[in-house]
Amino acid sequence: MNNLGEAAARNLAAVREKKPLIHNITNFVVMNTTANALLAMGASPVMAHAPNEVEEMVSFAGALVLNIGTLTDPWVASMLKAGAKATALNKPVILDPVGSGATALRTDAARTIIAQTRISVIRGNASEVLSLQRDDTKTKGVDSIHTVDDAAGAATALSSQLDTTLAITGPVDLVTDGKRIIRVANGHPLMGYVTGTGCTATVAIGAFLAVDPDPVSAAATALAYFGLAGEIAGKVADAPGSFWVQLLDALYTITPQQLEADSKIESG
Amino acid sequence: MNNLGEAAARNLAAVREKKPLIHNITNFVVMNTTANALLAMGASPVMAHAPNEVEEMVSFAGALVLNIGTLTDPWVASMLKAGAKATALNKPVILDPVGSGATALRTDAARTIIAQTRISVIRGNASEVLSLQRDDTKTKGVDSIHTVDDAAGAATALSSQLDTTLAITGPVDLVTDGKRIIRVANGHPLMGYVTGTGCTATVAIGAFLAVDPDPVSAAATALAYFGLAGEIAGKVADAPGSFWVQLLDALYTITPQQLEADSKIESG
Amino acid sequence: MNNLGEAAARNLAAVREKKPLIHNITNFVVMNTTANALLAMGASPVMAHAPNEVEEMVSFAGALVLNIGTLTDPWVASMLKAGAKATALNKPVILDPVGSGATALRTDAARTIIAQTRISVIRGNASEVLSLQRDDTKTKGVDSIHTVDDAAGAATALSSQLDTTLAITGPVDLVTDGKRIIRVANGHPLMGYVTGTGCTATVAIGAFLAVDPDPVSAAATALAYFGLAGEIAGKVADAPGSFWVQLLDALYTITPQQLEADSKIESG
Repeated sequence: MNNLGEAAARNLAAVREKKPLIHNITNFVVMNTTANALLAMGASPVMAHAPNEVEEMVSFAGALVLNIGTLTDPWVASMLKAGAKATALNKPVILDPVGSGATALRTDAARTIIAQTRISVIRGNASEVLSLQRDDTKTKGVDSIHTVDDAAGAATALSSQLDTTLAITGPVDLVTDGKRIIRVANGHPLMGYVTGTGCTATVAIGAFLAVDPDPVSAAATALAYFGLAGEIAGKVADAPGSFWVQLLDALYTITPQQLEADSKIESG
Repeated sequence: MNNLGEAAARNLAAVREKKPLIHNITNFVVMNTTANALLAMGASPVMAHAPNEVEEMVSFAGALVLNIGTLTDPWVASMLKAGAKATALNKPVILDPVGSGATALRTDAARTIIAQTRISVIRGNASEVLSLQRDDTKTKGVDSIHTVDDAAGAATALSSQLDTTLAITGPVDLVTDGKRIIRVANGHPLMGYVTGTGCTATVAIGAFLAVDPDPVSAAATALAYFGLAGEIAGKVADAPGSFWVQLLDALYTITPQQLEADSKIESG
Repeated sequence: MNNLGEAAARNLAAVREKKPLIHNITNFVVMNTTANALLAMGASPVMAHAPNEVEEMVSFAGALVLNIGTLTDPWVASMLKAGAKATALNKPVILDPVGSGATALRTDAARTIIAQTRISVIRGNASEVLSLQRDDTKTKGVDSIHTVDDAAGAATALSSQLDTTLAITGPVDLVTDGKRIIRVANGHPLMGYVTGTGCTATVAIGAFLAVDPDPVSAAATALAYFGLAGEIAGKVADAPGSFWVQLLDALYTITPQQLEADSKIESG
């Protein structure tokens, strides 16, 4: 925990210093949101999905974020192409399986991407992540139908099976690589009333993965940072419009020292 | 009027309680805007346009919103497919004919969608809605060239002809099913200086239609709710950036009681 | 300088009076951002990219903005088609070569558009604009690797070669048509922490070109106006979320008199 608080501070400082380029192939709803969040964090976002561009673009990037919201088949093809290149270049890839479990297109796409790409972290809500294993879960849109606690055992097993780190976000976030289990308690209820907060958690992990080679540490510390921004916003805003403005501000103003002091990261 | 004020309060409470999933096939400009507005209202937005996904997605939804901004032919095809499924499943469909009357693509698409789909409500400005009937109107982009008063007679006739409810928004909104005529006077001039306010009025109607089977009541009460949010925002903000932040906040904070008290809905 | 301060005031007043329709074929990240900025300025935005619509749409427009972020081949085709129509109709075209120099797709597309379209103004950062000439520059995403001062000589030569006006934005903006050189010093460092500020500078030039036939004057005055909005925002906001809200507000509230007084436009 202390180690991860320190890692959080170190990662945030490193993102601001190195300004890693984060290549996003993501959904139309959140492109503006996550680009602004990455800039506020200190990273450098680029959104590019053309099949004749993604390999070149990812070669410049510190991390690749794949997000399957507003998905269509051509976008899956671009994600697979970019993911293969990132895998070949040993660049971290983060998958956000938005809506996996809700429709066959999303579930199949997520599973195909996982099968063909070396994924460092998968970030989703419990039903999205668990849909990657089981066929008996249906999401209500992109909302969760499982609690994080329900999901802990299944997540650990799934993480081992998929050989990747899972970050399941909810009131308390859970990060596991099948051996370690970390819980992150930072956050605020209004985050559920702004679109793209899950997707923003994913790009925060992307930015931290660009500077931290340990997927568990990168994911847990990024979630603490993003959740803390929500907490700070929630102290001055009591409704979603002003809450998001304040959250973006907090991503920019939180200091590494503040993050280390206020991270709520627990092992086990 | 009193009945509709009560209906407005009831509908808002029902949206917040039931959190209906609203399936949007909509334009790139407003996806983020309308997703955030639906969340602030208490509804659950999903944006999905893939031809191999829309039928499955709409089967989970409480309402389907079709919006023809940034239109291309493949999106028309997806809208028709989703609309046919919604029609078969008896789910309410709301059409926003953005830019109909301005270009042949938009006008033809809107007419084709209407011909092949059972539409509960069409929401647009006067020139957009009236373009669905006549060929002698040209919109200046998506701005109106007819006043609501000019449009009342034509709207009533068109509503009967198309056998659907029309919601024509402007300084005073007009809702008609060909027999009933309702006017809604809530609103604020700054709504014209923020992109997607018309599209947001449309998704508010979508959310209310998911809980109110009467299209006239759902449309009129949703417009009163959205217009009241504008009024509240206009009391504390005097320019478009902060106005929209406040409007999102108001969508979240308005209580059913407040909506009933401050709705400006008049019959006739 | 005095002349350009007066021109800035005149252009802003003219945009608000005439509300020119600005047709944008632009990237997914900034569509919402630039639509809102154009509305706040007093212009009338429309986003339309369908190949079977762009010629009709541009015929109504006061200016056409082409922006190659999130580019794919079909979008290039639509830009070429719209650009050819605008050229035939003598309408001003503004090109934003987002990411040119970073990938072959972007660089080639920008060069092809320039070859086939009469462009009034190209607006980008130094590395993007200079990539249109030389093959030895690589951009880090869409960030600049050349200073404006480094770029002045090259820009003047390139402007003559391409026979168009170049607007290179940075801490100090540079506008040149190969003969005249104008520098604009308005702006604020937080503009680098919000996505789409460059793209918004481009649409501001588009709006001003719709009312000012001189590309150098239109570009320099639009950049002063947009930069001044940033300065005003920076006086009350110290982080990116609230900064952008304030900037949008300032675009709406700046008066022509204020713009004339506070423009920092210098010749030579």
